[in-house]
Amino acid sequence: TTEFNENPHRRFNILTGEWILVSPHRTKRPWQGKTEKQSMETKPKYDPNCYLCPTNGRMGGAVNPDYKKPFSFVNDFSALLKDVKEEKYENGLLYAESESGICKVVCFSPDHSLTLPLMSREEITDVISLWQQEYKELGAMDGINHVQIFENKGDIMGCSNPHPHGQIWAQRSIPQEVQKKSDRLLAYWKKHQASILEDYIIQELALDERIILENEHFVSLIPYWAVWPYETMIVPKRKIGHIGELSNDGKKAFAEILRKTTIRLDNIFGTSFPYSAGIHQAPTDGKEHPEWHFHMSFYPPLLRSATVKKFMVGYEMFANPQRDITAEQAANTIKALSDVHYSKQ
Amino acid sequence: TTEFNENPHRRFNILTGEWILVSPHRTKRPWQGKTEKQSMETKPKYDPNCYLCPTNGRMGGAVNPDYKKPFSFVNDFSALLKDVKEEKYENGLLYAESESGICKVVCFSPDHSLTLPLMSREEITDVISLWQQEYKELGAMDGINHVQIFENKGDIMGCSNPHPHGQIWAQRSIPQEVQKKSDRLLAYWKKHQASILEDYIIQELALDERIILENEHFVSLIPYWAVWPYETMIVPKRKIGHIGELSNDGKKAFAEILRKTTIRLDNIFGTSFPYSAGIHQAPTDGKEHPEWHFHMSFYPPLLRSATVKKFMVGYEMFANPQRDITAEQAANTIKALSDVHYSKQ
Ligand SMILES: O=P(O)(O)O[C@H]1O[C@H](CO)[C@@H](O)[C@H](O)[C@H]1O
Ligand SMILES: O=P(O)(O)O[C@H]1O[C@H](CO)[C@@H](O)[C@H](O)[C@H]1O
Repeated sequence: TTEFNENPHRRFNILTGEWILVSPHRTKRPWQGKTEKQSMETKPKYDPNCYLCPTNGRMGGAVNPDYKKPFSFVNDFSALLKDVKEEKYENGLLYAESESGICKVVCFSPDHSLTLPLMSREEITDVISLWQQEYKELGAMDGINHVQIFENKGDIMGCSNPHPHGQIWAQRSIPQEVQKKSDRLLAYWKKHQASILEDYIIQELALDERIILENEHFVSLIPYWAVWPYETMIVPKRKIGHIGELSNDGKKAFAEILRKTTIRLDNIFGTSFPYSAGIHQAPTDGKEHPEWHFHMSFYPPLLRSATVKKFMVGYEMFANPQRDITAEQAANTIKALSDVHYSKQ
Repeated sequence: TTEFNENPHRRFNILTGEWILVSPHRTKRPWQGKTEKQSMETKPKYDPNCYLCPTNGRMGGAVNPDYKKPFSFVNDFSALLKDVKEEKYENGLLYAESESGICKVVCFSPDHSLTLPLMSREEITDVISLWQQEYKELGAMDGINHVQIFENKGDIMGCSNPHPHGQIWAQRSIPQEVQKKSDRLLAYWKKHQASILEDYIIQELALDERIILENEHFVSLIPYWAVWPYETMIVPKRKIGHIGELSNDGKKAFAEILRKTTIRLDNIFGTSFPYSAGIHQAPTDGKEHPEWHFHMSFYPPLLRSATVKKFMVGYEMFANPQRDITAEQAANTIKALSDVHYSKQ
């Protein structure tokens, strides 16, 4: 796969059917544009003004319990609401439909100062257990056909509170990013009675050009079609449709690779690495989904340093995503890093 | 179309086939997250350190002529390169292909201090004339099947130089955002022998809920399926496949509506409104494209004020785009504004 390493080329995303433009020669471009503020402040373990810390009041008026383990609650400013009447609207070329759902916040830890890479494997395992519970409970609710678990980390990724937390938006319709993947996973499943992601991981392990970490159950790698500079994907080696199906051992292995992967991301620029992360998994629409193979992806914007990000703007919005460093270069950088967090070295 | 104004719903984009989640009730959410720096500096008419000002040296070593009208040149750090050998790569589940093309920079004016909304109709007409020329010349080149004209305005939109300028990336393959629209325009054309966009504009003019401005040849409106808070689209009333087909009158009308639309965007928060803008038009692949109807879109990120933007992150990246204010609310805000730029009021 080195044929194109020097020259512009397009790569195909087998999960979404989309293309990405790669311009490996373009990293030489000087940067005179926007730089981000790098936050150097150390956070306290408890912040009396944080509406996610234990025992503090929230903006909606509720008070958090004195939680000791990961804790979830319904978002006080949910973008989705329950029990919205199911309606379709069609007027000439205008098409809309009502949507209903539920939005939750998941605090990863009572300790305000932490982030996933600073938590222990056991603490992360507890987060995964809560994700499992939410996926099952929300997914079992009437009219909830999809459960999106995600995290926005860092203020440049729109995160408005530094307390370690993620979100869950569960809803009636299947979101389009998921639908794209569902369609392609299903087409491959029908043709080969196999998971395209399982076959892909077998190939990646054999090539060993984009693999970052591996344990008995999981692999973390830069996908061949990565869009963001250090976009990373964590995938179970064997097909598992959703996190609810994880065994106890699988859960520990997931926690371990999640910990080490996020530590390495922080180590790239010696900064708490901003990203949006999300888990794509089987819809909860009550149907069998033998085609689904869950995975967690990280979309981090930083490109050149802790303060210079990649902008997905003009060309990327109107034409298609574009990246400057290749997936292989990104993988090599991350592979060379330590599994010990920079703040503890 | 007021049925859903209070409740979460999804709207369908007839040009791309994609859905967007609208959460009208969510604007009440308080914001404690990132705010952008508002630049208050007034720019000089000539900046000796600007590599786009007339007579200055550029980073690549070339020197700009003492240009008096819009001026274009090949980007010194092009993401696309000419004469890359056409090759396909397929290895198991890895698919790639080489890409070639040409990237140009278009300076809108020799005057460093201007932006489109501060330029006269005549000056903007000159910009459109240069776009026309580039579209035709680049499009006529061997192996250039698509010409993407766009502008990134403002440093929060990745613009690295405040001199008024845009870019053109012309390339062999048809970018996927364009391909999506091509497919849907063509399907409608085959079925109705009509442009879906022409029919849509007729309907919007009749409804008059999202129209911002109108003249003999053009309409500017918030599309029903707008994603960005103040996303705006300028469309010729009658089908015109690409800007090369514009008559002299059409060109003046385009310049006029472009000027007034960008003035109103600046007037929303009394700030030079950041955005990415782009023109979608017929591919230059030598085929007839009776289905194409060109249009220019503006994707501006500001949501609440000159310093608080909408983040398209977590849920938006993993599920689908989401917006808080409705297209109708955005249109009402812009409709109420003056056609005189805030700096001249
Ligand atoms: O070419 P520029 O202005 O240096 O770069 C800007 O526009 C390009 C095209 O949209 C993007 O790829 C870059 O991320 C952005 O910073
Ligand atoms: O819900 P929050 O953290 O206030 O908001 C953040 O995440 C949401 C889900 O990705 C986005 O819609 C918002 O734009 C972003 O600021």
